[in-house]
Amino acid sequence: MDSIAIGAGILGTGGGGNPYIGQLRARQAIRQWGPVTVLAPEELPDDARVVCVGGIGAPTVGIEKVRDLQSYHALRAIEDFTGEKATALISNEIGGSNSVEPLIPAAMAGLPVVDADGMGRAFPEFQMKTFFVYGVPCCPMAIADEKGNSVVIRETISPVWAERLARSLTVQMGCVACYAVAPMTAEQVRRTAVPNTLSLARRLGDAVKDARTIGHDPLDAILDTCPGRILFSGKVTDLQRRTTAGFARGTLTIEGLDDYSGEQMFIEFQNENLIAKRNGETVCTVPDLICSVATDVGEPVTTELMRYGLRVTIFGFPAPALWATPEGLAVAGPRAFGYDTDYIPLMSPLPPGEG
Amino acid sequence: MDSIAIGAGILGTGGGGNPYIGQLRARQAIRQWGPVTVLAPEELPDDARVVCVGGIGAPTVGIEKVRDLQSYHALRAIEDFTGEKATALISNEIGGSNSVEPLIPAAMAGLPVVDADGMGRAFPEFQMKTFFVYGVPCCPMAIADEKGNSVVIRETISPVWAERLARSLTVQMGCVACYAVAPMTAEQVRRTAVPNTLSLARRLGDAVKDARTIGHDPLDAILDTCPGRILFSGKVTDLQRRTTAGFARGTLTIEGLDDYSGEQMFIEFQNENLIAKRNGETVCTVPDLICSVATDVGEPVTTELMRYGLRVTIFGFPAPALWATPEGLAVAGPRAFGYDTDYIPLMSPLPPGEG
Repeated sequence: MDSIAIGAGILGTGGGGNPYIGQLRARQAIRQWGPVTVLAPEELPDDARVVCVGGIGAPTVGIEKVRDLQSYHALRAIEDFTGEKATALISNEIGGSNSVEPLIPAAMAGLPVVDADGMGRAFPEFQMKTFFVYGVPCCPMAIADEKGNSVVIRETISPVWAERLARSLTVQMGCVACYAVAPMTAEQVRRTAVPNTLSLARRLGDAVKDARTIGHDPLDAILDTCPGRILFSGKVTDLQRRTTAGFARGTLTIEGLDDYSGEQMFIEFQNENLIAKRNGETVCTVPDLICSVATDVGEPVTTELMRYGLRVTIFGFPAPALWATPEGLAVAGPRAFGYDTDYIPLMSPLPPGEG
Repeated sequence: MDSIAIGAGILGTGGGGNPYIGQLRARQAIRQWGPVTVLAPEELPDDARVVCVGGIGAPTVGIEKVRDLQSYHALRAIEDFTGEKATALISNEIGGSNSVEPLIPAAMAGLPVVDADGMGRAFPEFQMKTFFVYGVPCCPMAIADEKGNSVVIRETISPVWAERLARSLTVQMGCVACYAVAPMTAEQVRRTAVPNTLSLARRLGDAVKDARTIGHDPLDAILDTCPGRILFSGKVTDLQRRTTAGFARGTLTIEGLDDYSGEQMFIEFQNENLIAKRNGETVCTVPDLICSVATDVGEPVTTELMRYGLRVTIFGFPAPALWATPEGLAVAGPRAFGYDTDYIPLMSPLPPGEG
């Protein structure tokens, strides 16, 4: 579990909710209600009904107002609404605490979790899932808070409208809520999910921990496990971060150290890191992954924990292949976030199944 | 229909949506789909399933972005969710366009409308209904916009939370939406609705029109039909009005004319008029009705049409008896709107059945 927390923290590109808190909550759920089986997508029975569950809100709030059983309540609400019982759960994103969020309702309800997710990373907005890009309906979806309020977004004219309505509810609910989407079929999961991401997160975390144990550089271990490149390394010298409209938004400035001495990196984020500029030049954009890691120990530094003075190394990883398509880029490319720049792939996309 | 528009405009205390637009929409619906039967509460069959439908939003927006069939979509959404068909509809409030909003889905669905409502006036917030004060659940309720988005607020910890969530959805939906609440029984309607208000609005409008025709003072005709008192008469000399957080909020200053020369009235509103001060002294507060009427013709002046220079007479009418109780005042008394003042009844409450 602590390996998954490290790996999902890295793949979360800053967002997805605090992975340490997510890990503690998932551990407690498993201790209380029993272990959870993880199934590969191909192991799903053909008649499976797979519900995607996740947290929604600002990670800056999530570390102060820890989630409770909202995702279980959201699961029950969508089951009630659709009249269908879930037979498996799936992560909405393999970032931060959201990577393990389904383990909590899965432990409570005795359901397996699929080794896959709807992003292969983390993204800030609800509609930014490969499921919806490739034709799975985003509604009905249920959203619940810790107080006992629950809402079903029944029908929207587009996935972006589901995000708008869910976000405004989340703000009212105190910026920390959970949702569950109407069940998908096994075929839909196999065709539209980014596969094997929970195991990738675990392998990534294992590699970092092993490197620390045997005295190797954890940064090398990360690159050995998940092909990508180091974009920058330095010290955080400025951080503008505000919690607004249900997101943690801001900018991060890093002054180069060692090989990068005299250089500067500038990153804009909306829960997740969206665009990285090195000496004024764009070097990496969504949907490619821009990941901050503590330079000394290889521990992910998520948006809500970023602070002045930290020594960080910025990795770039290529987006999962499902994002590097015209349909994918329309939903999660730089222009979808308002940047007037085209997506220039960091490296050629990874084959499906490698994250 | 034009009589109801005048009467509901007066009883709406400034809010409830523009009565002229509401009247045009209801006329068109009846022309297109046929006439609507109006039933007294005691005429409802005991097994009736009565759905409350209404508009939600800011009346300042509602006059520019005219509602379409949102209340019909909300009705169908709540029927789908509950699995129960409505057998009659009821107004949420006898103010402005909301007094006739149920006529539109009623004409479309061939359902009768009950001669009663949930306020006996208009109030700005969803939870401020006699239904909910006296134990009818406020959820589930469905909310729909003109674009095709629909949401069901399934369960909330209090009626105020239903308002919070519905209001935030309304803001996203463009400040103009409609809702439908899960069906009530005939017993619930008879016990918790303010009865005979649609017919009261019609009588009030008829009296104003008749007075104009025969050259009598329409202001006298209003008082003869609906016992109350004139609080002030003068010219609007200042109006602060802003559309914010899904409401039209502001203040109105009136300089006295004739009998009120040298005096001043100050009214605060949130869609509806909430508190009236004459020369600095509070003379009328919610839940009593503070109603603005054009002095010359007795036509109601609603919040969205109020403007500098208008000659208006301000009426006070006592709140329906269901509001003048500790439970009622907790929901819609001056303290519920943040005023540090107790409710001092304008006159002794009317007996039920007289509005």
